[in-house]
Amino acid sequence: MRPFLEEARALLAELVALPTVSAEGRGLAEGAERVAALLESLGLKAELHPGYGPPVVYAEGGEGEKTLLFYNHYDVQPPDPLALWESDPFTLTERDGAWYGRGTHDDKGELVARLMALKLFREKHGFLPRVKFVVEGEEEVGSPHLEAYVEAHAPRLQADAILWEAGGVDAAGRPYLYAGLKGIVALELRVRTARFDLHSSYGAVVENPIYRLSRALASLRDEEGRVLIPGFYAKVRPLTPLELEVLSEIPDESEALKEAFGVRDFLGGARNLEFNQRLYAEPCVNLNGFHSGYGGPGSKTVLPAEAYAKLDFRLVPDQDPEEVPILLQRHLEAQGFHDVEVVVLEKGERPARSDLAHPFVGLARKALEEAFGARAVLYPNMAGSGPMYPFLHHLKAPAVGLGVGYPGSRVHSPNEHIRIQDFERGTLAILRLLERFFGIL
Amino acid sequence: MRPFLEEARALLAELVALPTVSAEGRGLAEGAERVAALLESLGLKAELHPGYGPPVVYAEGGEGEKTLLFYNHYDVQPPDPLALWESDPFTLTERDGAWYGRGTHDDKGELVARLMALKLFREKHGFLPRVKFVVEGEEEVGSPHLEAYVEAHAPRLQADAILWEAGGVDAAGRPYLYAGLKGIVALELRVRTARFDLHSSYGAVVENPIYRLSRALASLRDEEGRVLIPGFYAKVRPLTPLELEVLSEIPDESEALKEAFGVRDFLGGARNLEFNQRLYAEPCVNLNGFHSGYGGPGSKTVLPAEAYAKLDFRLVPDQDPEEVPILLQRHLEAQGFHDVEVVVLEKGERPARSDLAHPFVGLARKALEEAFGARAVLYPNMAGSGPMYPFLHHLKAPAVGLGVGYPGSRVHSPNEHIRIQDFERGTLAILRLLERFFGIL
Repeated sequence: MRPFLEEARALLAELVALPTVSAEGRGLAEGAERVAALLESLGLKAELHPGYGPPVVYAEGGEGEKTLLFYNHYDVQPPDPLALWESDPFTLTERDGAWYGRGTHDDKGELVARLMALKLFREKHGFLPRVKFVVEGEEEVGSPHLEAYVEAHAPRLQADAILWEAGGVDAAGRPYLYAGLKGIVALELRVRTARFDLHSSYGAVVENPIYRLSRALASLRDEEGRVLIPGFYAKVRPLTPLELEVLSEIPDESEALKEAFGVRDFLGGARNLEFNQRLYAEPCVNLNGFHSGYGGPGSKTVLPAEAYAKLDFRLVPDQDPEEVPILLQRHLEAQGFHDVEVVVLEKGERPARSDLAHPFVGLARKALEEAFGARAVLYPNMAGSGPMYPFLHHLKAPAVGLGVGYPGSRVHSPNEHIRIQDFERGTLAILRLLERFFGIL
Repeated sequence: MRPFLEEARALLAELVALPTVSAEGRGLAEGAERVAALLESLGLKAELHPGYGPPVVYAEGGEGEKTLLFYNHYDVQPPDPLALWESDPFTLTERDGAWYGRGTHDDKGELVARLMALKLFREKHGFLPRVKFVVEGEEEVGSPHLEAYVEAHAPRLQADAILWEAGGVDAAGRPYLYAGLKGIVALELRVRTARFDLHSSYGAVVENPIYRLSRALASLRDEEGRVLIPGFYAKVRPLTPLELEVLSEIPDESEALKEAFGVRDFLGGARNLEFNQRLYAEPCVNLNGFHSGYGGPGSKTVLPAEAYAKLDFRLVPDQDPEEVPILLQRHLEAQGFHDVEVVVLEKGERPARSDLAHPFVGLARKALEEAFGARAVLYPNMAGSGPMYPFLHHLKAPAVGLGVGYPGSRVHSPNEHIRIQDFERGTLAILRLLERFFGIL
């Protein structure tokens, strides 16, 4: 193994060994200190910024006329279920050309890739380029304080471009990058129709909360998945010709995913451009759970008194996660569902998409293609969500994400891992990006 | 306490002490033997009939030109949750003028009331009237073998009238009796849209089982509770003028129930005759449970792969519990729900209603009114279900139910009990009924 990979492995092993589980509030202070120390050892000036949940690690340094900001996080998802891990989640383990452990991809492996790319840059060019780091500790619980942090520290965070986390190669081995993330808002709908559960013989005269909630949920979208809440699409920013072109260049994975997921057909029979457009550039409503009454074996003639459903909306620019619950409530009332209570579960995240015409997007794509020796796939948005918006909004800079994973990395699941080859290429891609961005090439 | 009540209490204590819990399959053989012995001690010839689940206790004897058949059951519901009982469920306990213990009302107390009424009859008139008993041991698990038993033994079971279990006084203290029971069929609907749960970001393209099941459930009825399945009402036997008259005489309890249940309004705003008609004489669909996806605290951005709902239909004469699932399946397919699987959970019970014009119905009502010194309320059907149909069908005889409970008896719940006064009056009502039926009065 090349010396830089040996060093990367040692660094990653150190970080993986820290159980920085934000959902459980453990290991976070220690994790922040360790990350700060690593950034200091690189020659950057690091600070711990308290007051926004677990300490935010901020670092800056290097030389150059431009500034590149790195966004990463040092927290990880809980390791459960432990029994499904083939090796200890907090012990970096190498097997079959891969590194296993919680956070190897999300997001400690990516942080190490950036550190190593900077080291390689310095070795090769004799100086450190001007970079900034924001490494937060509560990304896995929805980054509830990051927006306030970015707003408060916007002057210090100023940068010309932002390098986001996540990314790697797709199922066909093509490297990919993305320039945005969907927004999200998570809600619960609650219906109560009686003071307590009744015998189901009263179903002849007493309203049923499952019926009410079912009707309310059925009113939210049509059979093809289009959201039926008035005003829901009003703020959706139309796609630019470039965005449409980029979407049309994304390989059609619909058939392969259909097979993998075991689904008969996608909503509205979507495939090709329509599939990519829906998945990466359109908002939607998702039902996460529905619970009411008896769920055990056989039957129970009960008429439940209450029913609950959880749902999330994935949003695209310029939809507002604070407005959606209001539109939803208004829709439900207009449909006669005065008995359906809308509860916002989390603050939500705004959708974010960088200007695809910005030179940084093309530069990042080129760097990726050089490192992988293959055409890179550019996604205007990922289907998922993240706290990218405040950075775009306050720093007025574009962001792209590229990383070291692959679809089998088992992010958030047992046996999370990255392939060493992906890590190596991903690190080289960042080195190339640094070289291009700072005008060395 | 009067001597007959002392004796009744001793008999009831003996039966309550037997843990004849059919859902757990315990105490049933011993319970059947004890019931047979009690019937023998009364001077009847008792037999245990195996081959239909727990032994059916059959007994016959006495004199007279007519025959009255008693239907009862010796099994009880599980005593759980034990912690909520103020005294041991299997130890008859007297406090505040009531007898506490599992089965005191349902149905051991009622069986003892019948035994005591026969004893009182013999003491008073010097002979035992011609009676038959069918005392089954799996009523609390839906009487799955009773229909086959009645069919096979129809010649021996022949009777001129049938006395059913359950009944007593209503919330206002009025005695009541009923001449029928609704039918029931319990089903489960299942939807699977993918091979495994997915990240909810795929909700933009992958179908959601909660949406499918919600729409399917919403299609089953309208806002007022009317079932929308084509053909569902086709076999409903129109109410006779007498049945309508009897329904209109039932006191309007809708306001009191609204208060007790904490419901804003009944389906379709029903009250008075419409309320009684819906509750006691119309079929309906009830949703018992809906389970899918995440139901814990906060949010989880999951797209579940499957969803389940349990439901039951309450049926009235002459609907068929075997036909309803077929109509349901046909309806779902016609509505495009090919992905919704219909699973029948139990065999179901046919609806039953005796001819209200039959003299036995009037006689039973009169007997009840004499014992209570008050006007009795007659229900053409109860809202609940039970295995009455095979008796009506094979024996061509009317059945009425009258008993010893009151709305606070906590049937199937902890602290089940009967008030001694209700027991005494209920027993006297049966004595009166015997006297009238056998022409002594």
